[in-house]
Amino acid sequence: MFRSFTCGELNISNVGQDVTLAGWVQRVRKMGGMTFVDLRDRYGVTQLVFNQEINGDLCEKANKLGREFVIQAKGAVSERSSKNLNIPTGEIEIIVNELNILNSSEVPPFTIEDNTDGGDDIRMQYRYLDLRRNPVRSNLELRHKIAFEIRRFLDEKRFLEVETPILIGSTPEGARDFVVPSRMNPNQFYALPQSPQLFKQLLMVSGFDRYFQIAKCFRDEDLRADRQPEFTQIDCEMTFVEQEDVLNIFEGMMNHLFKYVKDIEFAEAFPRITWADAMKYYGCDKPDIRFGMKFVELKDLTTGGNFVVFDSAEYVAGICAPGCASYTRKQLDQLTDFVKRPQIGAKGLVWVKVEADGTCKSSADKFYSQEQVKSWADRCEANPGDLLLIMAGDTRKTQKQLCELRLEVGGQLGLRNKDVFAPLWVIDFPLFEWDEDTQRFYAMHHPFTSPNPDDLSMLDSNPGEVRAWAYDMVINGVELGGGSIRIHDSKLQNKMFQLLGFTEEQAQAQFGFLMDAFKFGAPPHGGLAFGLDRVVSMFAGLDSIRDCIAFPKNNSGRDVMIDAPSIITDDQLNELHLSLVKPIEK
Amino acid sequence: MFRSFTCGELNISNVGQDVTLAGWVQRVRKMGGMTFVDLRDRYGVTQLVFNQEINGDLCEKANKLGREFVIQAKGAVSERSSKNLNIPTGEIEIIVNELNILNSSEVPPFTIEDNTDGGDDIRMQYRYLDLRRNPVRSNLELRHKIAFEIRRFLDEKRFLEVETPILIGSTPEGARDFVVPSRMNPNQFYALPQSPQLFKQLLMVSGFDRYFQIAKCFRDEDLRADRQPEFTQIDCEMTFVEQEDVLNIFEGMMNHLFKYVKDIEFAEAFPRITWADAMKYYGCDKPDIRFGMKFVELKDLTTGGNFVVFDSAEYVAGICAPGCASYTRKQLDQLTDFVKRPQIGAKGLVWVKVEADGTCKSSADKFYSQEQVKSWADRCEANPGDLLLIMAGDTRKTQKQLCELRLEVGGQLGLRNKDVFAPLWVIDFPLFEWDEDTQRFYAMHHPFTSPNPDDLSMLDSNPGEVRAWAYDMVINGVELGGGSIRIHDSKLQNKMFQLLGFTEEQAQAQFGFLMDAFKFGAPPHGGLAFGLDRVVSMFAGLDSIRDCIAFPKNNSGRDVMIDAPSIITDDQLNELHLSLVKPIEK
Repeated sequence: MFRSFTCGELNISNVGQDVTLAGWVQRVRKMGGMTFVDLRDRYGVTQLVFNQEINGDLCEKANKLGREFVIQAKGAVSERSSKNLNIPTGEIEIIVNELNILNSSEVPPFTIEDNTDGGDDIRMQYRYLDLRRNPVRSNLELRHKIAFEIRRFLDEKRFLEVETPILIGSTPEGARDFVVPSRMNPNQFYALPQSPQLFKQLLMVSGFDRYFQIAKCFRDEDLRADRQPEFTQIDCEMTFVEQEDVLNIFEGMMNHLFKYVKDIEFAEAFPRITWADAMKYYGCDKPDIRFGMKFVELKDLTTGGNFVVFDSAEYVAGICAPGCASYTRKQLDQLTDFVKRPQIGAKGLVWVKVEADGTCKSSADKFYSQEQVKSWADRCEANPGDLLLIMAGDTRKTQKQLCELRLEVGGQLGLRNKDVFAPLWVIDFPLFEWDEDTQRFYAMHHPFTSPNPDDLSMLDSNPGEVRAWAYDMVINGVELGGGSIRIHDSKLQNKMFQLLGFTEEQAQAQFGFLMDAFKFGAPPHGGLAFGLDRVVSMFAGLDSIRDCIAFPKNNSGRDVMIDAPSIITDDQLNELHLSLVKPIEK
Repeated sequence: MFRSFTCGELNISNVGQDVTLAGWVQRVRKMGGMTFVDLRDRYGVTQLVFNQEINGDLCEKANKLGREFVIQAKGAVSERSSKNLNIPTGEIEIIVNELNILNSSEVPPFTIEDNTDGGDDIRMQYRYLDLRRNPVRSNLELRHKIAFEIRRFLDEKRFLEVETPILIGSTPEGARDFVVPSRMNPNQFYALPQSPQLFKQLLMVSGFDRYFQIAKCFRDEDLRADRQPEFTQIDCEMTFVEQEDVLNIFEGMMNHLFKYVKDIEFAEAFPRITWADAMKYYGCDKPDIRFGMKFVELKDLTTGGNFVVFDSAEYVAGICAPGCASYTRKQLDQLTDFVKRPQIGAKGLVWVKVEADGTCKSSADKFYSQEQVKSWADRCEANPGDLLLIMAGDTRKTQKQLCELRLEVGGQLGLRNKDVFAPLWVIDFPLFEWDEDTQRFYAMHHPFTSPNPDDLSMLDSNPGEVRAWAYDMVINGVELGGGSIRIHDSKLQNKMFQLLGFTEEQAQAQFGFLMDAFKFGAPPHGGLAFGLDRVVSMFAGLDSIRDCIAFPKNNSGRDVMIDAPSIITDDQLNELHLSLVKPIEK
């Protein structure tokens, strides 16, 4: 062993001990005949001291150390005269009597500090140096701890982790598959799994009873900030359960994580909100309930004012921003500009200030009487000093726009604190989603999702109203996971395929092996999957999942550190019976 | 919840309780007005009872149940009159008062019993039914437990599990890569990792200190019985360690597994044997030391007998099979046939029987005197009743053949009991391996393996004799894992590349990003990787790793259940800028 202690564990109780440390040189300072070296490893920083008078040669050697040199130092632990109480090792230092340089280092292209001078591109190119920085490494330590605690919890609940294959078959529906040419089966391809969905349902048919897997999944999508071509799911499935059982187990898992990872215990059960209410009160299916400002519908109170924007709108609703009546013209204009941005696409917004004396001042004053405007404020339960922000238009679009506005204002008011966690379940998702373009229904979740039995009678007559046994866990406006109770009855499954417009042949071609399996005693089952990257990001308070992945890819799907993907040799192509087609220049 | 208890937990203490069970119908028996149903789930089997006289309708319903129907049964726990003490639930039965059929089942294509009537092909096609069988499922339960205990042990030792990418770059050396065409980067390919080797070394450069990962790895090789295109490694790396530290930690890990998975504690440290001694005494680098029969070299004692086979041989050695002097002519002929099989390729063997009176009888009697033959027996420390088996020829080839013979005879003598575990470390592997075909040295492990510093002076003068800091863990003749201390000094690394015949450009092209990383303060580090599939097979006493994989592929790399790989659509090919080349008919 190159060391007797790490750089994070020596303290006042070790004074007088002879120790050996090894690590990286964080920095070297010379002060009046003394040289101080901060020695860093994963566990912390320990100060090494060299005295010019007592050991000139050794001190000279220390003076020549560069940043990020790897060294081994032997010496005695001594109490510091000037203590640093911000770090665990800050009360001691090592009086070094032997210094071995284990490796030198070129000057790194950016500083290895909590706040580095390196930009995104250079940090990704030298990711191995970026990973030396405390904030980056601590994200990955957190990821390890979260994954470990998930496994500890699920193991205790008798879940078995089963590895499902990475080389599977391609299913042309849904997101794009990555494919892998097979050399032994010329002109045939494996696909990388988008999720272990079908395999975990097979494991339920196999009687595995409770399955989970922390599984790599793959989607060849055009990438956005929070997408990666490979990502990690906490994939779970249970047999002989109803929705309530699944929610209980995984609410328990999340409580376990909060307790053991963040030392947070929630006093109450996670609130449950129906999908319909989530849309009604928050305008989206993943509401951030760290703060209120629920939507209040005002359509009935706004008709007849001759204000064509409201009169012609299918939907009029507002939110009440507490204490914002003091917003300046400029601030209000900025909010209007915010909703008019192309990403949001609203035409504008109407504001109402509730003054200290209870009177209202509105940007639509010329269309409405004081009483009318006041009736809006009353319905919104606005207090003097509050500001109403009202939007109008097509229901779904306006809800989406008002949702963005609510989040923006909540952020401005400091109501979206990353250290506050507000979990909830969204339940009663619709079974089907109507698609305007193709004029047909699609499965909102997937075609194996069970309808709520109470709504079975509407399957034919009113499919759009049928609720599914499907659920999402949402925290702070992020969907961390979701799932459903699956159909295990082949008659109902066939009915679903029929409603979704599959012919029998199409259903067989795409899901044949699962349909075959269901003939041999499929039990009732259901489950869900969490995005591990999202869970870690949430716990770490990160803005992007990229920051909790050791070696992420950029928006072009490239790993710039290893320079992949790359060309392969003609021999490789020949063996795979493939030839390249030159892409058309754009 | 569909049940209040599983089928494995009710016992005599539950008598009188009202319970609800759910599971699969294992079998239905009718006996004198009673119907007995064995209800099965992952946890066990519980007997359900229906009485024709008391509830005729219910009993009729039970009589119609088929094998593998999924049912829910409610009733009272009752003490059995005829107990089955072989199973935990064997003292009780359920007097059923409500029976719900949750799903029916077609007759399965093979019986779901410990010993099934299904052949390999049909079991693989219906793997989801095969997985219902206890022996198959228990292998996967064991796999879960082993993986979980590995994580528990390594977490306690401060190892961090870090996920390294699955979509990486192709390195044309070594085994064949699976490649993945990139749609966003036309005509470029990702490769699937053969191991996370380079990434784990980068993590050491990053100061992660202790890393592990239970990682999927991929090799596009022609498959043999114990190979799969995707397999799972327990991949580990440590910083600031010497070989001794690595061996200690992972011997500790294996002891932990034996203790918590098999309740076995080894009284002593794992023996260590040098690679040279492994070859000398066992003829291979993964000796099965559950039994003795070490090789004894006899060349010096066999010269001058005018027996041209021995005289012309570079190497003559024997093993002593205890108590086998009683072997018949037929048995001896079978052993001769065994070594003459093409897979082994020996010309024959010489036997010596040590009779009860101490005299020797040999198949080479006409060439050697009694004294000569007796001197062989003495050197082999043979006792009366023992049998010597002697082989001769080229050293390496003969060692390999004698190794096979030793294992065969050990098996015949029952010395290779699957419930006995004999672990050891093989150390001091040679750094280089001479290849006759290309007349050059190759790295035995990989080009990053550190030479033993004691042998550095021989690097130029006698490279074949240089020992590496490389080690394998072997149990019962199976190499479960291996690794090495890596080179962290770029001068030594360049020297290695030079000795291995790499130009500077070649080294840069293949390992550039690692070489670059090493410029910025690479610490001393080393590690190893275990094959999880092999570890599980070893613990389960299986002959093939396939039996401990949920959804394995066959020898053509096909998953016959899901019928993958398969063709993909022209749209998919176009998007990937690929066209197929028709394979030449064979």
